[in-house]
Amino acid sequence: MVKKELLYEGKAKKMYKTDDPNMIIVEYKNDLTAFNALKKDSIEGKGSLNNAISASLFEYMNENGIPNHFIQKIDDTHQIVKKVRILPVEVVVRNITTGTLCKRLGIEENIRLPRPLIEFYYKNDQLGDPLILEDHAELFGWATKEQISFMKETSLKVNTLMSAYFDTLNIILVDFKLEFGVDANGTILLADEMSPDTCRFWDKTTMKKLDKDRFRKDLGDVLGAYREIWRRISEKEAN
Amino acid sequence: MVKKELLYEGKAKKMYKTDDPNMIIVEYKNDLTAFNALKKDSIEGKGSLNNAISASLFEYMNENGIPNHFIQKIDDTHQIVKKVRILPVEVVVRNITTGTLCKRLGIEENIRLPRPLIEFYYKNDQLGDPLILEDHAELFGWATKEQISFMKETSLKVNTLMSAYFDTLNIILVDFKLEFGVDANGTILLADEMSPDTCRFWDKTTMKKLDKDRFRKDLGDVLGAYREIWRRISEKEAN
Repeated sequence: MVKKELLYEGKAKKMYKTDDPNMIIVEYKNDLTAFNALKKDSIEGKGSLNNAISASLFEYMNENGIPNHFIQKIDDTHQIVKKVRILPVEVVVRNITTGTLCKRLGIEENIRLPRPLIEFYYKNDQLGDPLILEDHAELFGWATKEQISFMKETSLKVNTLMSAYFDTLNIILVDFKLEFGVDANGTILLADEMSPDTCRFWDKTTMKKLDKDRFRKDLGDVLGAYREIWRRISEKEAN
Repeated sequence: MVKKELLYEGKAKKMYKTDDPNMIIVEYKNDLTAFNALKKDSIEGKGSLNNAISASLFEYMNENGIPNHFIQKIDDTHQIVKKVRILPVEVVVRNITTGTLCKRLGIEENIRLPRPLIEFYYKNDQLGDPLILEDHAELFGWATKEQISFMKETSLKVNTLMSAYFDTLNIILVDFKLEFGVDANGTILLADEMSPDTCRFWDKTTMKKLDKDRFRKDLGDVLGAYREIWRRISEKEAN
């Protein structure tokens, strides 16, 4: 499958056309952004690690019946995925309080929630990706009632699967962001990526942050953290 | 009933103890604030108009079986209400898009929604009263699941009642904010005030704004708008 013209360049990925109108090639970039792209950097090797991590996690989703866009990893920084129209609604699942939730609502950090919290955000950089209600998404045409239900249900399932998976790697899944898309048949699928750019991972023993918070908070050794995630995933896969 | 020591002073009202531990006296102030109190003014006569309007609207709620804190208006700027602990969750009901909704979500102004939109906000001046999900209120202990259901249901009923009432005054009820409180028995009640400070009212013929937006947007003749609302309510009551 050949990479043809660039369709879209995002903050962390580029999407290319292929010969097949229903498939695209995703290139994982080394660029890192935070705080609505106010903070930017590029870290050699980050794209290749996220490509590998994301491919493994989407394969895990496939094995567990979570419909998603992933088809195949083709090289170090590229993977083939189904072409979808990304819905302008991001889902955040939280198991432990941290990040914008705490800032926005004055909530204490690092509290384990009695059950997972699901939040929807309107994907709009100009507006700073504001929190929305399900009713906003429905009333303003960003997702249908059925799509919202599917996203909620699937996100909870993904949380259960991912929490169990990372637990075996001695990692706490703190929270994560999911994006969904609609394919040519109108079917809704999990899409985008699953990586330390979009999930918060803490080492269960040391509580060391192994995700993009190292970049956001200038904690140093960003690449080392991403490498550690990939090391544990690939060792598990080797067994 | 005698006004005793000041219990609490808010932006637009003062609350006083009385001889009865279950009742307080509310004094409606002339102060007007907007944008989280960044904009302030005082308009002679505003307190007395809001006291009269709010008393009439709570009486209308009483006649229609909406449990609320109102007991009796006692003079120009004072009314007796049941003492409640105000829940830190405000409810906003919207029939037409305007205000912070449009700014926050980039939505076009003045669109009639296909059904009323109910939003919850966390009452916290320091945080700027952020929008919250029902799950935030429940998980962080700001309201119980039952209280949230009651607030939603009651707010929809209030919207139906108020929209019909103001329609007979040739006024469109655009949106409004409600607050709820819990009395000594643990019963949840509609509380706070219902006035042009907390509702958006548009004249149905001229679309003239007859509410606090005249102050927010420097449209002039704020008191005239409040007087007009009271004139139409009092004329209806006289019939």
